[in-house]
Formats: sequence, C-alpha cells, structure tokens
Amino acid sequence: MGLIVQKFGGSSVADADKLRNVARIITETYKRGHNVVVVLSAQGDTTDDLIEKAKEINPHASRREMDMLLSTGEQISCALCAMAIEVLGCPVISLTGWQAGVQSNTGYGNARIKRIDTERILAELDKRSIVIVTGFQGINRYGDITTLGRGGSDTSAVALAAVLHADLCQIYTDVDGVFTADPRLVPEAHKLEEITFDEMLELATLGAQVLHNRSVEMAKRYNVDLEVLSSFSGRPGTKVKEVVKIMEKSHVSSIAKDKNVARLALVDLADEPGIAFRIFSLLSGKKINVDLILQSIGRGDKKDISFTVAKSDLEDAERVLEENRDYIGFDRIDVNDNIAKVSIVGAGMMNNPGVAASMFEALFNAGINIHMISTSEIKVSVLVDADEADRAVRVVHRKFFDEIAGQNSL
Amino acid sequence: MGLIVQKFGGSSVADADKLRNVARIITETYKRGHNVVVVLSAQGDTTDDLIEKAKEINPHASRREMDMLLSTGEQISCALCAMAIEVLGCPVISLTGWQAGVQSNTGYGNARIKRIDTERILAELDKRSIVIVTGFQGINRYGDITTLGRGGSDTSAVALAAVLHADLCQIYTDVDGVFTADPRLVPEAHKLEEITFDEMLELATLGAQVLHNRSVEMAKRYNVDLEVLSSFSGRPGTKVKEVVKIMEKSHVSSIAKDKNVARLALVDLADEPGIAFRIFSLLSGKKINVDLILQSIGRGDKKDISFTVAKSDLEDAERVLEENRDYIGFDRIDVNDNIAKVSIVGAGMMNNPGVAASMFEALFNAGINIHMISTSEIKVSVLVDADEADRAVRVVHRKFFDEIAGQNSL
Repeated sequence: MGLIVQKFGGSSVADADKLRNVARIITETYKRGHNVVVVLSAQGDTTDDLIEKAKEINPHASRREMDMLLSTGEQISCALCAMAIEVLGCPVISLTGWQAGVQSNTGYGNARIKRIDTERILAELDKRSIVIVTGFQGINRYGDITTLGRGGSDTSAVALAAVLHADLCQIYTDVDGVFTADPRLVPEAHKLEEITFDEMLELATLGAQVLHNRSVEMAKRYNVDLEVLSSFSGRPGTKVKEVVKIMEKSHVSSIAKDKNVARLALVDLADEPGIAFRIFSLLSGKKINVDLILQSIGRGDKKDISFTVAKSDLEDAERVLEENRDYIGFDRIDVNDNIAKVSIVGAGMMNNPGVAASMFEALFNAGINIHMISTSEIKVSVLVDADEADRAVRVVHRKFFDEIAGQNSL
Repeated sequence: MGLIVQKFGGSSVADADKLRNVARIITETYKRGHNVVVVLSAQGDTTDDLIEKAKEINPHASRREMDMLLSTGEQISCALCAMAIEVLGCPVISLTGWQAGVQSNTGYGNARIKRIDTERILAELDKRSIVIVTGFQGINRYGDITTLGRGGSDTSAVALAAVLHADLCQIYTDVDGVFTADPRLVPEAHKLEEITFDEMLELATLGAQVLHNRSVEMAKRYNVDLEVLSSFSGRPGTKVKEVVKIMEKSHVSSIAKDKNVARLALVDLADEPGIAFRIFSLLSGKKINVDLILQSIGRGDKKDISFTVAKSDLEDAERVLEENRDYIGFDRIDVNDNIAKVSIVGAGMMNNPGVAASMFEALFNAGINIHMISTSEIKVSVLVDADEADRAVRVVHRKFFDEIAGQNSL
C-alpha cells in the first residue's frame, strides 16, 4: 500500500460523464489499497468563461479579485468529483487550497507555493478518505486566496506529492503520454515509456504542452516520480524520472515544435562591448523572455544581433527597443513572426556530436532553410519558416526514429 | 458618518449591467462618508444551476459537498462586484464567509451563525475600504464551508449589521418595499413607509417573500433597523423596526397570500385525550411544520382534526400518518391541495376585535367560502379555494384600504 497523487486536467473533468470516469479511476486506485490524494483543475472552459465575465466588468481588475473569482472553478470541479465518488461508495472529502494548507507567497495571479501544512490532509487520509484538493490555488499570509498561474494544477499536484512523500504522482491528461513527436503531425510517432526530468523540461519549454515546466522543475528538485497518462485510454503512460532505466535506442527522445515565436534582428549595431548587455537588460526589465540569440561576426565596425521572443511579447519588445534606439545605437529592427522553432531533445545527445549534424542533414535533404540554430547539452533547436515547420518535424522524426527502427530490423 | 450594511439579492446582481448598478449604489453611499459593508447573493440562477449539476452526478450528494459547491456562487458575485467598484475608483475588497469570520454550527445546508470574528472586516474598514462579504455561508469548527439555507444572505446581512453595530441594514431587492398587498395582484396597493418586526415576521411566514423570517427574527432580537428597498428604482423603501413612528391609518398593514399550502383532515378520530399530541409529535419528528390547526367539536365519540402543511411536505405527512394509522386511530385522511391562505397582518389589530369581522364580511359579500380560520394577536388567516385567492386578496384590500381612504377624503 502506498500513497498516490493523481491530477486530472480540465478536459478530464469537463462534464458529468467525464467526472464519473475520473471517479472510477480514483476509486479503483483506492480499492487496490492505496491512499489517494487527487488534484483537479477547473472544468473545461470554466476559467476562460470566468475571465470573460471579469473582462466585461473590468478589463483591468485587480489580481487579488481575479484570484478570488478564478479559484471558484476548481472548487466546483472538486465538489462535483467528490459527489461522483460518493456514488461509488468510497469515503471522500474535497478541500480548497486553504483547507489543504497550501501556503503561497502574495503574488496574486502567479503565486508560488511556500509550504503546505499537511495536517488536515493527513487527518483525512488517516480516516482512509480519498482527499480531493483544488489545484491552481493557495492562501497567502493575509488570508487571501491566490492562484498559481499557468500550469498551476500540475504544480499543486507535484508539491503535494513532494510534501506527502507520495510513491507516485500521476498527471492524467487527454494524451497517452509523451511521444517522440506530436502524433497529430507524425502518425508514426510512438509513446515513450520513460523520459528524464531534464528532457521533459526542455520539451515543456519547447512547446510540447504535456506538462508545465514549473511542475517538472519541482518534481526534479524533490525527486517526485511522475507519470503522464490519459484519463480516457486506460493505457500506461510515460514515466518521468531522474534517471531512466533503459535508454531509448535513439539518442533523441522527442521532437517538438513551437509556433509561438517571433524573431527580432537589430541591424547595424556598433561593434563595441556592452551592446548585448544593454539590449537584454532592457528586455528583461520588461519581463520579456528571450530565447535563441545569434550575434553575427562584425563586418568592419558593424554587427547584427538576432533573437526570438514569444509572439505575445513581440509588440512590447519592439516598443522598448525603439524607445532606446539612441542608447543601444542600431540602424533598424527587422521582425519576422512567420517562423517556428523545431527542436530535438534527448539526454543521450550530450556525448554524440553527430546528432545535431543528422538533424541539419535531414532538413537540408528536404530543402528546408534554417534561420537560426541553438544548442544545449540535451537539445538542438532550429528556426525555420512557419509553413515548413510541420514538414520539418516529420523529416527529422523519420531521420531519428524510422532509420533506427530500420537498422534494428536488419 | 455611520456604518451601513447593504445586501443585494440574486436578481440585483444577475449580470454585468446590474452589477454596475449595484456598484454605483454602493459607491454613492461610500462617498457620502459612510463605511459600507456589502452582502451579496449568487447571481441570478447560479445556485439553481449548481444544484442541477450536482443532481446530474449524485442526487443524494452529501450536504458537506453541496455546501462546498454552492458557496462558489456568492464568491463569484462578490469578486465581480469588487471589480465593478474598482472601475469607479473606490478602495474595495471581497471576503468569503470564512475570511469575514462568519462562524457557524456544523449543520451543512442549513447552518446557523454562531458568532462573527470581525477582526478582518474592521481592519479593512479602518483602511476605508468597502468590504464585500459573501452571503449565505460560513465556516464551521472543522474548517469546512457551510451554507445557511433559504434566506441565508438576508441572515448574513442582519448578523453582520448586529455585530458591527451598523446604523442601518438595507436589504435591496427587486421590489420597492413592503406593500399593503402584492401590487401585481392589487394595482391600488401602496408601499408602506414603516412596519414593525412582528408584522414583518407574520408577512414573511404568510408567503410575502420580501424578507426571510430568520433574518427578521434576528433583526428584532438585536434591534437592527432594516430597510427593504429596490436596487432598480432609487426610491425610498420600507423601514422595518421595533416600534413604528406613525401607525398606519388602517389597523391592517398588509394582506398576504400563500398558495404553497395543503390541508389534511383526519376524519373520525376517537374523541379522547392525547390524540392531537400523537399526530403533531409524529409530524414534528419528521420536521414537518404544521400551520393552521382546526379541531372539530366531537360528535358522539368521534371528532375530526384538520391542519395545513407546506405543499412540499404533503406526501411525507400523508405517509407518516398512514404508517401510524392504528396508533393514532382514524378512519381516513382527506386531502385538499387546491387551496390558498389569505391573511391580514397589522400591529394595530390587537385591540380591534372588529378587524377579523370586517375581513369575513368582505369575503362573504364576494361569495368566497372560508374553509378554516386562524388568528393571532397581529394577524387573521383564512383558507379559501386556490382559484378564489386572488379575488379574496382584492376584496379584502378594498375593504381595509379603499374604504378607509374614502373615509379620509370625506
């Protein structure tokens, strides 16, 4: 008998039928003798609907009141799920973030969990109750409700698994696990049995939306074994852990695509020290995250610097740079938001310098032009035209998975 | 400068426009220099919608989880109202029942307020913030959310007004105040400037749905001055207080109608002591409230007992009586649920024995048959056929108000 934390996302609890399905999964786990702590998101589009309601009244509502509003979504799904479990005859209790002792800092709208007072949860588990906790929310030192921002429910689940020393934290979603590429894009993509935290972190950052990276970072820090699996299929999912048992045959675990990216290039900068510092400190001052950076080798006394930002930050980035044109000293800004980032991720890549070359080869053979390249120890990212991104994912996937599968079959 | 508690019902906060209107009323009060504590119900049909959602999943959901679910309705309306007030530039904070320190007993679904820890509210008022509190809910000693049952938001408002020693508790609703009769039924009905707590209590019990009697009882006990008024018209409402300044010209304040009533008659009971005790202790054991009771004078060794219950209790009442047929000893149960109760209420009635007679006269002249009669110090109720109830209200209203108006004009 162990303790299992199960988290279900909004699409898994969207209506009465889906809640009944979730209740079945939870009670089956419980009946196998486990203690079960469940973390739920709000149903389907509830959070978006509440945001719409708020905007109609006040587009600039305080974050404190937004959190007061949005936190109701999880409270509703948790109460309904508890009712569905009652029907199945298991003891159950739903708890809000504050009832579950989830203490956060005061950053309304994007709060961080500071600690969890587990007293109430442990008391309920001692009674052999299934405990359902609202994801995405906590309480701060003023006694006010906070929400944890994007991916907050995943973070709640991992944090609870960490403080409760759970044996496993299962993240139920609408996909079967982590795939070698998006199966909607690459039909021959297959599910990974295991993946490391670091690979998962790169994938999350690179646009594979299975798990939010805050939750993966926390799982890595507290060494919480994760499993990503589907609440619909009943199939085993992908385990996420520090070290994986069997290294996948390929040095590459997965291929990701991110279309939410725009490239800015500052053209004809003075080739002098401190320019890069000026640019990126201005951007970080506006909380704009910069991803790939490419600095051209100076031609005479001039050079160019290109970098990518999230599409939603493009306008702000252009404005702050234009406002500081004299301070930075550039001729013009060149913008391209019709691009996409395609990345390969794999812990097995570090010691295999040929991996990046194989990727470039596949793209070259397909006639796909690479605008920028960035590498880390476990990933290679390239920037390509947006309308070539899907094809890029397919040819790279074929390069790393089908060819290797072919070799194995020899 | 004083402290005013303002309560707005579900129809007053039903959508964005109505919330903006409520925000305007609140901020105008605030800008006149008052401290303002606001109590809100859930928007429009929110509570009913949540109950529907719960029923779809579990028609017998635990009350604890129902309260967890239903309490979100008020949290949503309070957060949205706070946002609407932010737009108008006044400092504001919304508080849930537990944040506002509303401590209740453990009676989920129908909890009673035990005490209110006013620390947080007073701290916010000290900052000159408008404080918006979720009506209808509290927290019990287990740290669980409770709801206060029907009329709960009125009760929350009066309880807050009592503990905060408010100068006035305004109950905003969709009618202009308390009328001499339902204006939809009696076009010439007029609004009362003032009414006593006792009259209001009788009216609430008798089916005039302006204020729930729990809140009026509490207002009487703690001597909280109430005002019932419309959130739409901007007109002064009706003041409810212990002693009214100017007694209305008529001895009758108001005429009420209640169609939610059914009559049971137990026929051919033994004419012996203890029968009434048996009947009504059985019913009270099932928490069935009995209203009018009429016991016939015995004929030989037999008698009949008739009484009324709420229509929703009729089935339960019949069942418990049938199950105890031998214990009680009756021949048959006669049921009539096609009836209505028409009542006149007035503190001025006590010392005027002619009031009841005038009512009977008006009904007799209109050819309306009276099935049962019940009187108290400040009311007279009669049971008539359901399809004659509206006409009964009109002729009685004419008797007491138009004739008197006529006398005054002579």
